Amino acid sequence: MSNQQYVEMWKDLGLNLEKHDVLLNALGKAYGDLFMAQKNRPAGMKYFDFVISEVHGLRIKELVDRKKAGKKIIGAFCLYVPEELVYASDATMVGLCGGADFSIPDAEAVLPRNICPLVKSFFGFKVGGTCPYFNSCDLVVGETTCDAKKKVYEVLADYAPTYVMEIPHKIDTPQSKALWLAEIKQFKQQMEDLTGNVIEKDQLKEAIRLINAKRSALKRVAETRKASPPPISGLDALLVNQISFYDDVTRFTQSVNALADELEKRNASGVGVGNPDKPRLMFSGCPMAIPNWKLHSIIESLGVPVVAEESCIGSRYFTDLVEPKGDSMDSLLEAIWDKYSSISCACFTPNEERVTKVVDMAKEFNASGVVYNVLQYCHTYNVESIKVEKALKKAGVPMLKIETDYGTEDVEQIRTRVEAFTEMLHPA
Amino acid sequence: MSNQQYVEMWKDLGLNLEKHDVLLNALGKAYGDLFMAQKNRPAGMKYFDFVISEVHGLRIKELVDRKKAGKKIIGAFCLYVPEELVYASDATMVGLCGGADFSIPDAEAVLPRNICPLVKSFFGFKVGGTCPYFNSCDLVVGETTCDAKKKVYEVLADYAPTYVMEIPHKIDTPQSKALWLAEIKQFKQQMEDLTGNVIEKDQLKEAIRLINAKRSALKRVAETRKASPPPISGLDALLVNQISFYDDVTRFTQSVNALADELEKRNASGVGVGNPDKPRLMFSGCPMAIPNWKLHSIIESLGVPVVAEESCIGSRYFTDLVEPKGDSMDSLLEAIWDKYSSISCACFTPNEERVTKVVDMAKEFNASGVVYNVLQYCHTYNVESIKVEKALKKAGVPMLKIETDYGTEDVEQIRTRVEAFTEMLHPA
Repeated sequence: MSNQQYVEMWKDLGLNLEKHDVLLNALGKAYGDLFMAQKNRPAGMKYFDFVISEVHGLRIKELVDRKKAGKKIIGAFCLYVPEELVYASDATMVGLCGGADFSIPDAEAVLPRNICPLVKSFFGFKVGGTCPYFNSCDLVVGETTCDAKKKVYEVLADYAPTYVMEIPHKIDTPQSKALWLAEIKQFKQQMEDLTGNVIEKDQLKEAIRLINAKRSALKRVAETRKASPPPISGLDALLVNQISFYDDVTRFTQSVNALADELEKRNASGVGVGNPDKPRLMFSGCPMAIPNWKLHSIIESLGVPVVAEESCIGSRYFTDLVEPKGDSMDSLLEAIWDKYSSISCACFTPNEERVTKVVDMAKEFNASGVVYNVLQYCHTYNVESIKVEKALKKAGVPMLKIETDYGTEDVEQIRTRVEAFTEMLHPA
Repeated sequence: MSNQQYVEMWKDLGLNLEKHDVLLNALGKAYGDLFMAQKNRPAGMKYFDFVISEVHGLRIKELVDRKKAGKKIIGAFCLYVPEELVYASDATMVGLCGGADFSIPDAEAVLPRNICPLVKSFFGFKVGGTCPYFNSCDLVVGETTCDAKKKVYEVLADYAPTYVMEIPHKIDTPQSKALWLAEIKQFKQQMEDLTGNVIEKDQLKEAIRLINAKRSALKRVAETRKASPPPISGLDALLVNQISFYDDVTRFTQSVNALADELEKRNASGVGVGNPDKPRLMFSGCPMAIPNWKLHSIIESLGVPVVAEESCIGSRYFTDLVEPKGDSMDSLLEAIWDKYSSISCACFTPNEERVTKVVDMAKEFNASGVVYNVLQYCHTYNVESIKVEKALKKAGVPMLKIETDYGTEDVEQIRTRVEAFTEMLHPA
């Protein structure tokens, strides 16, 4: 499509074209500086470069075309929204979490300043009219995972059709399992009502297969990063994970598998990225919604590779699959509950599972240290860092906690802290 | 008891005596400055002055004596812990929420700085060894109402025996009612296990009567404040509500009813407090745990009376009673659920009930304006202020939002803001 046709499409979606132009230009420049400047990138990243170059163009056109064909687009902010049910109803899901400082001033005209940047960013994209994904959505689906998101969905409901799923916080009780299962069933009903399509077993099984394949492909890429040197930069791997929330599932899965093929070959011949004399770092903590590349770019600017992400944009998304134990609808839905309740978000209490997972991952990926990221004012990941740090220390893995937002004011300060941290670490 | 005997008692409870002395001296001075200096106080406040003068003395001795007799002391941080079940098991409940800047440095040695002062304060009282109530507890009972408390209970569990109740956040679904009822039943079991006393219907009915009487007495006092001029200052009324979480229930209820008798007589003869030319303000928002008297003292220092508190330390505590519809244990427990799920905390979503209640209360109490208090970093009350302010505006009631902690640095700034706010209000 020509740029003019894109402009017409954005106009039809109700975007603020002037602001949106500023955003696209800034994004393009940041992407060039951070990604295209990297050395020795896998050839398979070309697909993802293309996706980003068309992130508000071709992909939005695909969504708009689907809408024209009567299909529904669902926006979500969190891993706990079961995308298997979205796809089983023949709808499409897109991630709406915001990772840009750009949209925050628009949010702060309505919301308090001292809540997390991710929440302000997605809200700002909507009220500022700068996100074509948001404006394509027939329904946005929130959840009760944290205070800031939970309450902002109420305000968001004035701007977009919003549905909220309750996620329980004490997950080891029969009553919380019952609540969660009921919420999954209610969401299934919601999708059926919205799309007019009854979700039958076959559709759900096919959707489970589709999403399992996507998660498995991402897991293949993650596994290759256990090699030393890792065959792909943390930035590129992060980007792939970020794109998983936006792209066409089948095409994305094929491209990720092609990348994984290449990375496995690289490992076989010892080709990798990063400085082999430097330690390997693992990232843990809050999600990094696109285009939040702040910590990865700071760390890797020092030649230090990031080899894993214990995060929603990372291991939490792809580690577990939906694996039904029977063929009935109840079995399928229970398998969905089983998978989703295994995602260790800091919203749970107590949450020893996550603490154990972080330590295990640090060992599996041979990480010399962990950078623990707290998005400013995120109480759950912030307080949970106490237990994570203690457990990592016991396992002999140093941790550096960085609390930050999307601003650039503290970049050099963080770089200095990461540099000091990595200097005291042994190369893995 | 002599002071030396108190000191021995505090030592036995494991307090840090030196720090505790500093706290008691500071408290005594603040109380004298703020409370005793008020003019035209009701005579019935003498009892509450006495309670405060013995807050770490006589009352703690009573708790220690109960412990010596084999009874259990339960500490709680939130209205959602059903005290009826505590008293039905012959245990005693005390509120542990912290309202003092004093204990925050001790907390910040462990916890992040940017979480709410109430959470830091109670945690600091425990780790600093300065709260004899905390150190008297056989069990502390938390809940999942907000991110900061929920996660800090996990850390607190390293310092004190801790039990956490799940409170659902979407309360209008059958699954959330089922979860909440199951949590109430589990808590009943917990109390039975801890005390060794099986809670029979008769004990529970008696406990419901006991606590209903306490809530009703507080409601009587609140009702008298609808008069113009109000017969009692906001500070004194706040104090009575704060003491309700600590004092012996029967003695407290008698004293509150005696105070209510006096206040009703004052109203009949037009005796009141505050400057009649000034507007009347209602307080709404976060709880003010003892000794947080900051906003009330600032407001009333301007001669402006506070006439109601839409708060956990206020209307949320006493408005609804437990009113069983049948005589079975299930009916009693369902009545507990019914009462507790009517408490409109900002943790719920959506929460139109609270918005409506704030507006209704402002009208009932003939408030010229509302001061909305957000404890710093409290996301739920902070974001909910948007909807509350909009609804109040629609009802013609101006609102002033004040976000603050327990520090004194911003006192003069807040006084200036409140003064400017009240100057634009009409006297009621």
